[in-house]
Amino acid sequence: MADQYAQTGGDIRPSEDIQPKTIDIPAIRWEEPAEGPVLVLLDQTRLPAEEVELVCTDPQGLVQAIRSLAVRGAPLLGIAGAYGVALAAARGFDVQDAADALAGARPTAVNLGYGVRRAQEAYRAALGNGSGNGAAGLERAAAAALAAARALHQEDAAASAKMADHGLRLLDELLPGGNHRILTHCNTGALVSGGEGTAFAVALAAHRAGRLRRLWVDETRPLLQGARLTAYEAARNGMAYTLLTDNAAGSLFAAGEVDAVLIGADRIAADGSVANKVGSYPLAVLARYHHVPFIVVAPVTTVDLLTPDGASIEVEQRAGHEVTEVTAPQAPLAGMEAGGGIPVAPLGTQAYNPAFDVTPPELVTAIVTESGVVSPVTGGSLGELCSRSRQVTMS
Amino acid sequence: MADQYAQTGGDIRPSEDIQPKTIDIPAIRWEEPAEGPVLVLLDQTRLPAEEVELVCTDPQGLVQAIRSLAVRGAPLLGIAGAYGVALAAARGFDVQDAADALAGARPTAVNLGYGVRRAQEAYRAALGNGSGNGAAGLERAAAAALAAARALHQEDAAASAKMADHGLRLLDELLPGGNHRILTHCNTGALVSGGEGTAFAVALAAHRAGRLRRLWVDETRPLLQGARLTAYEAARNGMAYTLLTDNAAGSLFAAGEVDAVLIGADRIAADGSVANKVGSYPLAVLARYHHVPFIVVAPVTTVDLLTPDGASIEVEQRAGHEVTEVTAPQAPLAGMEAGGGIPVAPLGTQAYNPAFDVTPPELVTAIVTESGVVSPVTGGSLGELCSRSRQVTMS
Repeated sequence: MADQYAQTGGDIRPSEDIQPKTIDIPAIRWEEPAEGPVLVLLDQTRLPAEEVELVCTDPQGLVQAIRSLAVRGAPLLGIAGAYGVALAAARGFDVQDAADALAGARPTAVNLGYGVRRAQEAYRAALGNGSGNGAAGLERAAAAALAAARALHQEDAAASAKMADHGLRLLDELLPGGNHRILTHCNTGALVSGGEGTAFAVALAAHRAGRLRRLWVDETRPLLQGARLTAYEAARNGMAYTLLTDNAAGSLFAAGEVDAVLIGADRIAADGSVANKVGSYPLAVLARYHHVPFIVVAPVTTVDLLTPDGASIEVEQRAGHEVTEVTAPQAPLAGMEAGGGIPVAPLGTQAYNPAFDVTPPELVTAIVTESGVVSPVTGGSLGELCSRSRQVTMS
Repeated sequence: MADQYAQTGGDIRPSEDIQPKTIDIPAIRWEEPAEGPVLVLLDQTRLPAEEVELVCTDPQGLVQAIRSLAVRGAPLLGIAGAYGVALAAARGFDVQDAADALAGARPTAVNLGYGVRRAQEAYRAALGNGSGNGAAGLERAAAAALAAARALHQEDAAASAKMADHGLRLLDELLPGGNHRILTHCNTGALVSGGEGTAFAVALAAHRAGRLRRLWVDETRPLLQGARLTAYEAARNGMAYTLLTDNAAGSLFAAGEVDAVLIGADRIAADGSVANKVGSYPLAVLARYHHVPFIVVAPVTTVDLLTPDGASIEVEQRAGHEVTEVTAPQAPLAGMEAGGGIPVAPLGTQAYNPAFDVTPPELVTAIVTESGVVSPVTGGSLGELCSRSRQVTMS
């Protein structure tokens, strides 16, 4: 049984332990009201029209929130997955079942599985630690899972800040004149992260340093994360931004109006192939044709050394109604159809709707992580960064 | 005062003089009811949800229909412009004023100005032909303008058929295996033409010859002409088609699923630069990167030898609300805003919304016209085709 309910954001005071965001309502937070612990999500499907929170009281409710994209974005999915395991443990659900359902909710973002595993391992370790299966033992294991989720949340916030530093330094190196005009795709800010995000955090750092001339925001069809979410974050941060259809990016490149492309990533294969929101690959090809740097910003957890190359990345195919209908970020209107939207294509139209595409390493100028910058992007340079990063984590 | 009104298509019997279309309701037709002549348009903003006709009783009503995209597509705009001059003449409006307003209604499609000029010149020639300015002379001049519009309409239908022949022959030459998988952008079928269209007519010819494996239909943001109109025409013709977001085209190229790109054109400069619906240029860059033929199909009237190059083409910038709001092809719903749509971006968001982009000749594999195929595309080869075509027209 899935359980989640909506509440307007204004009614709830954010908890004070994890608040490294510039956004008023955090994308995710753990709450412990008298009725038992809950995971509170800012429902991203309803932004920017409404700031509504979704309260998940069981793991299945979170699985639904992940599938419906109420919570989304690679790093945030990792954090959500970890909290989901903690929620299952705290609420007495079967932790293994919950972990399986959460990890399988969406296939492409590697961070989701990572977050789930990390909380699950903490849970198991605590259980196996001689505390037994009694109530006190289970409680300690649940606390260990929650501590793992909180640690991941905080690490992600810290990683955001480091990616922003490294990314801004790289931008200044590649484009010494300042006055950067940056094109971005999809949404990679505070809404996808425990901190200020990935690619968006770099643009925000440039803005704060007075070196952002303009943020070009691709609307990012079919779900319009650029128009709805990146524009929302850019407006809240007072950045100079302009929205465009994904189609219009070509005209900007041709007019010499783009100095760099900054995007996030959902999975980076061992050879440096980057799976990211559909539409990223065409930007990479345009950037190459116009000799513009194409920069990927992602935490090290996005690198999946077990996926050897781009062809091995499983790309999520989503429902056709996301393309054949238009939906608005608010409560359903009269005239809407099964998929929740208004049909735009003739009935019976089939749609090809991959959620992601894969950019090969030769089109990626650099990958910026919290542990440093990889450029040129090769399997060797990426492997080296990962092993260096793991040493740091283990030390 | 602009005058147009809507009527459902079913109530009106099409006139029988010009019916070379496969579509039930023609995109445009001239009617002469007792109340006086009218121009009847299939309102393309409401397709595929509703087949509603728009009846224009004065030139200003037609100008509004052109601006709102109720009537659109380069060849059809030419026909509409010519009929608009005929309507002004027949209804006793100032023909010069009407011609200026019509020609200026949209700046990029060269055919619009061509159609207007052609009817206007026929009108002037008849007036100057000794028939004087009396009632009979004005009537004869109006008849001459109408005859010019009808001739253009019929020539365009004939040109469609020839473009389809030339285009299919070119496809078979470039891709001798048959089984063509064609990607197209925007709408270029019977809805934009006196006949079966430009690029779409070639795909339709391939379908009829049993050599079309799949038509990939770009949805074509912001106005979704692909999802709304091309899908509608493909479905009506029983073609195997699949809709995709413009973003997903890159994935198709990468997967080797596109054998050729076929698009129309709104203006072709003397050097072979092609202005077409925004999103065409990124497809040209993708096609080049993947060694896929990029073929432009357009009547010779689309070539504008007075525009020397791509940089000289004026690209229409349209209102930002086309990007910041989503609209559905039906009557307005509750919750819709000033632009007629539902806002998706935060209030105050600025949008960059060029209606067209320009593809340089070096990225165009071939230009298919009714007078033959130009390949490779250079100023010389294009000029030669135009002078040959004019000789044919004059003979």
